[in-house]
Amino acid sequence: MIKEIVPLKITEVPTGTRVFDWKVPNEWQIRDAYIADAKETRLVDFKRHNLHVVNYSAPVDAWMTLGELKPHLHTLPEQPDLIPYRTSYYQKTWGFCLSHNDLESMDDQQKYRVVIDSTLAPGSLTYGEAYLPGSSQKEILLSTHVCHPSLANDNLSGVVVAAYLARELQRLDTRFSYRFLFVPATIGTICWLSNNKSHLQNIHGGLVLAGVGGPGPFTYKRSRAGNTPIDRIATRVLKDRRSHVVQDFVPMGYDERQYCSPGVNLPVGSLSRAPYDTYPEYHTSADNPTFLTPEQLFESLAVVSDVVAALEHDLVFESNRPFGEPMLSKYNLYSTGELGQDEKDIQQALLWLLNFSDGQHSLIDIAERSGLPMHAMLEAAKKLEQHDLLRRSNEDRCE
Amino acid sequence: MIKEIVPLKITEVPTGTRVFDWKVPNEWQIRDAYIADAKETRLVDFKRHNLHVVNYSAPVDAWMTLGELKPHLHTLPEQPDLIPYRTSYYQKTWGFCLSHNDLESMDDQQKYRVVIDSTLAPGSLTYGEAYLPGSSQKEILLSTHVCHPSLANDNLSGVVVAAYLARELQRLDTRFSYRFLFVPATIGTICWLSNNKSHLQNIHGGLVLAGVGGPGPFTYKRSRAGNTPIDRIATRVLKDRRSHVVQDFVPMGYDERQYCSPGVNLPVGSLSRAPYDTYPEYHTSADNPTFLTPEQLFESLAVVSDVVAALEHDLVFESNRPFGEPMLSKYNLYSTGELGQDEKDIQQALLWLLNFSDGQHSLIDIAERSGLPMHAMLEAAKKLEQHDLLRRSNEDRCE
Amino acid sequence: MIKEIVPLKITEVPTGTRVFDWKVPNEWQIRDAYIADAKETRLVDFKRHNLHVVNYSAPVDAWMTLGELKPHLHTLPEQPDLIPYRTSYYQKTWGFCLSHNDLESMDDQQKYRVVIDSTLAPGSLTYGEAYLPGSSQKEILLSTHVCHPSLANDNLSGVVVAAYLARELQRLDTRFSYRFLFVPATIGTICWLSNNKSHLQNIHGGLVLAGVGGPGPFTYKRSRAGNTPIDRIATRVLKDRRSHVVQDFVPMGYDERQYCSPGVNLPVGSLSRAPYDTYPEYHTSADNPTFLTPEQLFESLAVVSDVVAALEHDLVFESNRPFGEPMLSKYNLYSTGELGQDEKDIQQALLWLLNFSDGQHSLIDIAERSGLPMHAMLEAAKKLEQHDLLRRSNEDRCE
Repeated sequence: MIKEIVPLKITEVPTGTRVFDWKVPNEWQIRDAYIADAKETRLVDFKRHNLHVVNYSAPVDAWMTLGELKPHLHTLPEQPDLIPYRTSYYQKTWGFCLSHNDLESMDDQQKYRVVIDSTLAPGSLTYGEAYLPGSSQKEILLSTHVCHPSLANDNLSGVVVAAYLARELQRLDTRFSYRFLFVPATIGTICWLSNNKSHLQNIHGGLVLAGVGGPGPFTYKRSRAGNTPIDRIATRVLKDRRSHVVQDFVPMGYDERQYCSPGVNLPVGSLSRAPYDTYPEYHTSADNPTFLTPEQLFESLAVVSDVVAALEHDLVFESNRPFGEPMLSKYNLYSTGELGQDEKDIQQALLWLLNFSDGQHSLIDIAERSGLPMHAMLEAAKKLEQHDLLRRSNEDRCE
Repeated sequence: MIKEIVPLKITEVPTGTRVFDWKVPNEWQIRDAYIADAKETRLVDFKRHNLHVVNYSAPVDAWMTLGELKPHLHTLPEQPDLIPYRTSYYQKTWGFCLSHNDLESMDDQQKYRVVIDSTLAPGSLTYGEAYLPGSSQKEILLSTHVCHPSLANDNLSGVVVAAYLARELQRLDTRFSYRFLFVPATIGTICWLSNNKSHLQNIHGGLVLAGVGGPGPFTYKRSRAGNTPIDRIATRVLKDRRSHVVQDFVPMGYDERQYCSPGVNLPVGSLSRAPYDTYPEYHTSADNPTFLTPEQLFESLAVVSDVVAALEHDLVFESNRPFGEPMLSKYNLYSTGELGQDEKDIQQALLWLLNFSDGQHSLIDIAERSGLPMHAMLEAAKKLEQHDLLRRSNEDRCE
Repeated sequence: MIKEIVPLKITEVPTGTRVFDWKVPNEWQIRDAYIADAKETRLVDFKRHNLHVVNYSAPVDAWMTLGELKPHLHTLPEQPDLIPYRTSYYQKTWGFCLSHNDLESMDDQQKYRVVIDSTLAPGSLTYGEAYLPGSSQKEILLSTHVCHPSLANDNLSGVVVAAYLARELQRLDTRFSYRFLFVPATIGTICWLSNNKSHLQNIHGGLVLAGVGGPGPFTYKRSRAGNTPIDRIATRVLKDRRSHVVQDFVPMGYDERQYCSPGVNLPVGSLSRAPYDTYPEYHTSADNPTFLTPEQLFESLAVVSDVVAALEHDLVFESNRPFGEPMLSKYNLYSTGELGQDEKDIQQALLWLLNFSDGQHSLIDIAERSGLPMHAMLEAAKKLEQHDLLRRSNEDRCE
């Protein structure tokens, strides 16, 4: 389905392939799974909800008492209506997830038929990749995990925002190249890193996109290094919006754990709305499409687009009139009279850019120091280049 | 008049001279200006108040209705008693400034005689300069704008404080040389910079003095670099006073805009009481001598003198007894018994200076770290030098 | 008495020895001292309380009126029950300390017999030293002053904690060597420094222990440099406890003044409970054993032991699996299910150590960044070394 939005190169990594400290596991196929009562009435049925079976469950077909079954049942007693999401990738087991209410209605006296019709067998791990070349080989990485097929915010939202950003960028001439990864979390990312080790030095910055469709303030989690251009630009773009959170890197979370592992150490941060494991719908059946809104998805797309625009324009300029202020009125750049807030911001951005464009400060440096909105900085930089008051420095930092 | 206080070298820069991105404009002479009614009664009269004519107004002599006149009239509807101060240096126009009350009493039905008897013709821009040589060629720059002839705080106050500081310094043997500039804002400063480009490397630090006679807390605005000796010393001197404000450099304000333009980038900050455009009297007829007090002017002179004293004594010392504490009682430097706050401060300053005078820390470094008042630091340094416990380091930073 | 706990090397420094800017003074012997009334009844008697005589008092034997005597009497009018502690090492005088109540009961009308049976004569200054060799010549210095023989918190407490820490460390194989100093304050420390100048470069870090038996939050005062390993580790260990205070170095206080003098500049901080001169019992007869508790002394010993343990383990590691996360479940290091807080901390510490062990970060670097308790960091590092996931870097900072 992503291929309908953006051309994808698909890579298959065979079961058993060694990737760094890991080995690609068997592929899991699930056809059916249920718990039925003596009358063969299905009480819990994978066909009614994907979440009912613990992901990666081994096959089973048995009659057992509730007592025997219970160690294999997962519920949320404090959210008794919801089905939890559970996986067991590296510990061979099987299990069912159900609402606590459904568990309460089960019965100690009778036996249950328990069926998981699954296969765990050699196959492959699959990831998709879209590469959009720009004028530089330096690239921006956008990575999103695709391994939760039945959760909406975590992470269909990331997949959708990444795909539509890719579609938007395809139409533009960009300075940077862009790479979009649609990968299973952890092992998929490790596969991609393992396959692309020699290539990593080209990555100028990147974002892991996850949980970007639900409510909650935007949260940017810094890269391991913490002060790279993507870190500073994402922080600045979020500051121009009302409420937001910026967090330091911690080695827990999504795939930034891999991109920021010590031997890789890429300038890759993470963008979410509410971060992982902080909202009640997280990893439950309540993380379904009703939890998302088109507005929230669009706003996330807008934020990522703003980050991309600022990265594209984060250049180091030098003033062509460095001695004293230039006479702005000569260039029709001196506004008088009543100005709106946007015009005032641009007027001030002109002065900030002229003063700090000394070959030492990039656009984000000056944006941080001035506190002006990024769009005013971009607009002012455009005007000053048009009037030949600024030139691009050879010290362009991204090359 | 300044020449009666301090000897001045006057420089004339002819109209048409190119200075950086600017050109010196025509000289403006104003002889008379008024709006009169049909009976030739002057309703608005330059001879009654300098502010009534927009500075740099082109000549005019015409009869017009209030409707025709209005685009040329400037009032302050929210301060209806006050006359605003307006200029139009680089856009050729003419205008009158008057109280909103006076405007309200004018009449739609009659015609008015409008006269501005001015000349805009080749001449020159004038600035004055006082240079007081010290033992070093390194110099401290004090700059003050002289282009608002009819406003008291902005900036007769700066002119007066600068002139009296110069008179005071003339009598002293100083380490630094001192240069005082009395210049028209912006274009005058640009002229001086343009005439003195090869000389700028001698400037160890400087202050733009503006708005130093009115009420309000002292405000120091840092130089572009932000952490030069003048920045740190001015901040420290103000901290020893009660309320004060320290601001980062922004490319808006007074002539620090020129001294801190990127090709010039001098360590020049700005000292004001209330900063520009933040008090209701700013650029109105209420900024007249009643807005100033002698006490406020004297206090500003005292602050600038304290900054100068601290700059003069901001030396790097080395302890002659660096191993363990020296035995202070041997030198009669160990005070016991009940001490006043000043004596306590000096007693502590002795210990701070002895501990941190390792050739790595200047007096301002140690003052910042100790938090002690600057006068106690200066007094303690004098005592320690007298007892040969400190020597001046070759690493004297200012040379 | 200290020798019964830990073997001590005793050094005697003869009177008159020049040590840096000082000279070792005469030795003081005190046999008896009293103020008696006409009936030879002792009103103030050194035999009843050591504090009654000003330390280092010259001998006297005279009859005098209260008026004549008063300049030699020290009381605390605001704490009228307490006897103050006074010394006069370098100004030759004599005096008595008594409660203000006792002074009030004395009588203007009669004469008093005043006797101090003391000797001030050539002898020596005495300090004790315990050296515990470790595998490295780099050593940790623990210094405590022994010159207040009659005050409990200041500083029998420091002596006791140092002695018992030494006893504990004797039983362990340590990486660092440990040196314990039991010295008279100021002059004793100056003597030791003067005798050991060539040796100081071996000192990796140290603590002055003083006032560690009374109530009040732990207070760590940073070394002069402020950011050495001992500073960061002591701060981190205290943060794991509830309330605590961390202060910057100031050149007032205990013997850190000497260790941090500019020519010596050792990485030596100071650990106290309530710091000097901040509690009402300070330097009075109320600083007696009832002011201490065994629990407070033990807690201080525990804190210093924790600091020592963290110093011993403050190594720089490198991950043996730097690309992506290692697969923790392979090593049985991936805990699932309900974890207690300690287990959670260790689980997170594993991830922090694996991520930041890149040869650039020591254990304290990672502890600071993670905010995890030091014991969890130490436990996790042990596990990772056992599974060969971390190795010690050649960049071991302490050598």
